[in-house]
Amino acid sequence: MKTVDEVWHLLRQEVAALEAVEVDLAEALGGVLREDVTATEDQPAFDRSAVDGFVVCQEDTSEEFRVTGEIRAGDGQSYGLPAGQARRIATGAAVPEGGEVIMLEDAAESEGAVRFLRRGRDHVRRRGEDARPGDVLLAKGTELGPGGIALLASVGWVRPKVTRGLDVLHVATGNEIVPAGEKPGRGQIRDSNSPLVAAWARTRGVRVRQKIVGEDAGALRHAIEGRRDLLLISGGASVGGHDCTAEVLDAAGFEILATKVAVRPGKPLIIGRRGEEWAFGLPGNPLSHFVCLHVFVDVALAAMQGRSGAPKIFEGRALSEVPGNPRETWWPALEGPAGLQPLRWSSSGDLTALATTNALLRVPPSGLAEGGKAGFIRVR
Amino acid sequence: MKTVDEVWHLLRQEVAALEAVEVDLAEALGGVLREDVTATEDQPAFDRSAVDGFVVCQEDTSEEFRVTGEIRAGDGQSYGLPAGQARRIATGAAVPEGGEVIMLEDAAESEGAVRFLRRGRDHVRRRGEDARPGDVLLAKGTELGPGGIALLASVGWVRPKVTRGLDVLHVATGNEIVPAGEKPGRGQIRDSNSPLVAAWARTRGVRVRQKIVGEDAGALRHAIEGRRDLLLISGGASVGGHDCTAEVLDAAGFEILATKVAVRPGKPLIIGRRGEEWAFGLPGNPLSHFVCLHVFVDVALAAMQGRSGAPKIFEGRALSEVPGNPRETWWPALEGPAGLQPLRWSSSGDLTALATTNALLRVPPSGLAEGGKAGFIRVR
Repeated sequence: MKTVDEVWHLLRQEVAALEAVEVDLAEALGGVLREDVTATEDQPAFDRSAVDGFVVCQEDTSEEFRVTGEIRAGDGQSYGLPAGQARRIATGAAVPEGGEVIMLEDAAESEGAVRFLRRGRDHVRRRGEDARPGDVLLAKGTELGPGGIALLASVGWVRPKVTRGLDVLHVATGNEIVPAGEKPGRGQIRDSNSPLVAAWARTRGVRVRQKIVGEDAGALRHAIEGRRDLLLISGGASVGGHDCTAEVLDAAGFEILATKVAVRPGKPLIIGRRGEEWAFGLPGNPLSHFVCLHVFVDVALAAMQGRSGAPKIFEGRALSEVPGNPRETWWPALEGPAGLQPLRWSSSGDLTALATTNALLRVPPSGLAEGGKAGFIRVR
Repeated sequence: MKTVDEVWHLLRQEVAALEAVEVDLAEALGGVLREDVTATEDQPAFDRSAVDGFVVCQEDTSEEFRVTGEIRAGDGQSYGLPAGQARRIATGAAVPEGGEVIMLEDAAESEGAVRFLRRGRDHVRRRGEDARPGDVLLAKGTELGPGGIALLASVGWVRPKVTRGLDVLHVATGNEIVPAGEKPGRGQIRDSNSPLVAAWARTRGVRVRQKIVGEDAGALRHAIEGRRDLLLISGGASVGGHDCTAEVLDAAGFEILATKVAVRPGKPLIIGRRGEEWAFGLPGNPLSHFVCLHVFVDVALAAMQGRSGAPKIFEGRALSEVPGNPRETWWPALEGPAGLQPLRWSSSGDLTALATTNALLRVPPSGLAEGGKAGFIRVR
């Protein structure tokens, strides 16, 4: 039985990054950058005024200046700065060579003339002060959020190279499940794993196709024909006679790398690979699903997307005691300003914790005392 | 000039929640629940086996049992439990009345008979142990993540009532801006605010229409005709003669509630309202934009969506010194396991910090010492 750390090590070592593709900037949000973004020109490209005010020749020490016109942002003309003359200048406008900018608040204007209460403050953003051509602005491996998108736009990097989208197939197995919109018969339950996996994928910007099959090796074999980047199979992972995930994966040419992991919940986790394609057999109960998706599948996903360092483990204090177990436990908790509040988790079918949790607390076999420090990951 | 706290108070008090609508579960991800979700039936709906194993009559103390058949998950039949007989039972299968489940690991089977090494452990999830009809499973105001979607699916709540989608109009103003894909002329820069706002909105599941207009009151007046929930105007907010956002909003019937906020960056922030419609005039530089979107606009958005408690302020330690300023400062930082690393922020046009930050650190006028505690918000 592999430990959690062993599974992480395996996934980080063995899961390869998918190819990179060029996309439009509008489609790059959430993508992982696969190239360094460098400045291709000076940033800023010209001396820009940082304030609204006046511009005069730096060496001109006149007491009073005649106001002769203005320079607006976007004005492409070249202006001279004759002695005794000042021009209005707007924030963002190009500053003429040799110009000093005085902000409005430091100026007293009357009848076409202006005097300055204070000079010598630097209100110009100089050409190239943020970056020079070739400077790396954003490193390979960065996940593009709104700020990253803004940076790329500002330097005209409108076709960034990011990891291509993942192709995921999810198959829910089980004779007892009916779609969530249907009324379960005697002994049946609604399928909550398919909506969970769909929402998990969507939150990560990943396409997923979904199928539901019974607990039948033939049907499962048929459902997983073909190839994709990631195959997720819900249920069918434990030791019962009708559980056939490992068997079907093996028959389809997957190398089975784990059939159990020392983790609670989620022990009967199956991990397989076939070339670059990875498969996870997720234990059927919803909390096991949730934990396995966040603790293991997300690590494989990060590696495929070319991100490093997953899972990101933070450290915090447990606000109440959590019992231990021979296997390490990932316990749903609510991270707040004061620490991590472990949520009530009465049974494997108790989904209220899942619906409100924002963190999974890593509980060692010895358990956690109130106020005890523990690692945790953030979930969504 | 309003303080940051005063603006938060204003927005929390005055911004009304939008109407609630019923949506399909598949469209509810990220939505804010506007009703309590209650159990409509027992959870679980029947006694379920928590393991793969055998079921016998609880009172039957025979040494050995004859294995007579099996109960699979989803099997709708009623089974009796005759003396001396055991049935195989699968995880999730319905447990016959009066049955005790013994897990496989506690059983020794040979030639159609089974003996149990251990009895009396409770491996049954009892009908109603998680919830009874009428119990609140998920409270009004919850934002639906993957776990929430799974919960709703599990109880068949497939048409949840959530806040309707927001309608946002964003207008970028300025004579100096050109679209990011074009080459700027002399004195011009690329528009990074429109891609920033688009990505910000998309991250929040919000639709946004976008326009670019020059620095011209007439064009801006025309661009903002009509109504929507939220109007964002980039640029045109400061004191220069060509900045006309406040004037145009006023003429369009908006009550102007602020034209300046004691915050850095972002001082020339304009806030207006017209009935239930809110407008923000965002200072043109990208970092001001980023800060105002996360510190102020997100608070209005949360109120419209029916979420409470925004912004969520965490507390952490600054890993290096941050200088103060008479106005409170929101400084881009990188939150990691050890604390918050303030990022290099050399000028208002320096976007590298924006592209990598995951937190904005709240720096009081006195500044922050290395190791000093400060509030921060998470950004994305």
